[in-house]
Amino acid sequence: MDIFSKIAAGEIPSYKCAENDEFYAFLDINPLVKGHTLVIPRREVDYFFDMDDEELARYQKFAKRVAAAIKRAFPCRKVAQVVLGLEVPHAHIHLIPMQSEADADFRREKLKLSEEEFQAIADKILNEFK
Amino acid sequence: MDIFSKIAAGEIPSYKCAENDEFYAFLDINPLVKGHTLVIPRREVDYFFDMDDEELARYQKFAKRVAAAIKRAFPCRKVAQVVLGLEVPHAHIHLIPMQSEADADFRREKLKLSEEEFQAIADKILNEFK
Repeated sequence: MDIFSKIAAGEIPSYKCAENDEFYAFLDINPLVKGHTLVIPRREVDYFFDMDDEELARYQKFAKRVAAAIKRAFPCRKVAQVVLGLEVPHAHIHLIPMQSEADADFRREKLKLSEEEFQAIADKILNEFK
Repeated sequence: MDIFSKIAAGEIPSYKCAENDEFYAFLDINPLVKGHTLVIPRREVDYFFDMDDEELARYQKFAKRVAAAIKRAFPCRKVAQVVLGLEVPHAHIHLIPMQSEADADFRREKLKLSEEEFQAIADKILNEFK
């Protein structure tokens, strides 16, 4: 199993932000900003665009709900949605609350947060998601 | 009308890559790499996540078809999908063919291409889309 499948299955710990039967959202541990979240399908699929139209639609619908929770938890102008996917072979959507487009610049220095800070951020999003 | 609505309506010229009744795809004129394409809804909507689930599903389905055409026209590892949207108040998906994640780095220097080069790139994608 790849690392994201293990995270979705609970075999590797993560800061859970949202979940349903098919998808799982958790904090990026190298966040660009507070609230930077990854949304993944539980099943192993590498390339985002290899998902069929119906699965993509459900994935997008779930990501939209997570983005709304992030925006309530961390007020921002918009939540960016970024799919790159060359580093981990398991499809993932980055959701990044933005005050400016520079907030979604992957070359910017990542935040260093404590376990307590990560947990508080995840709890805030999870609470808004419910 | 915002600039992207005018482009979709043909009132401002663009290098068309794909279209249907509801969506329109054209080359970004400040491309990160050859084949960097913008996909927009024809109707005026600012924030991506303000679209309802059904419209988002159709948007994603169309973008997936455009991404497949880009990948055939410009062989690459994956096509990135990036939605930022703070600069133009009309929802748009960036589709960027990647050999590495650096290809989707918005701070990298943009390509300078001639009109003929843009037209040839757009024609190649349009031809693969059909």
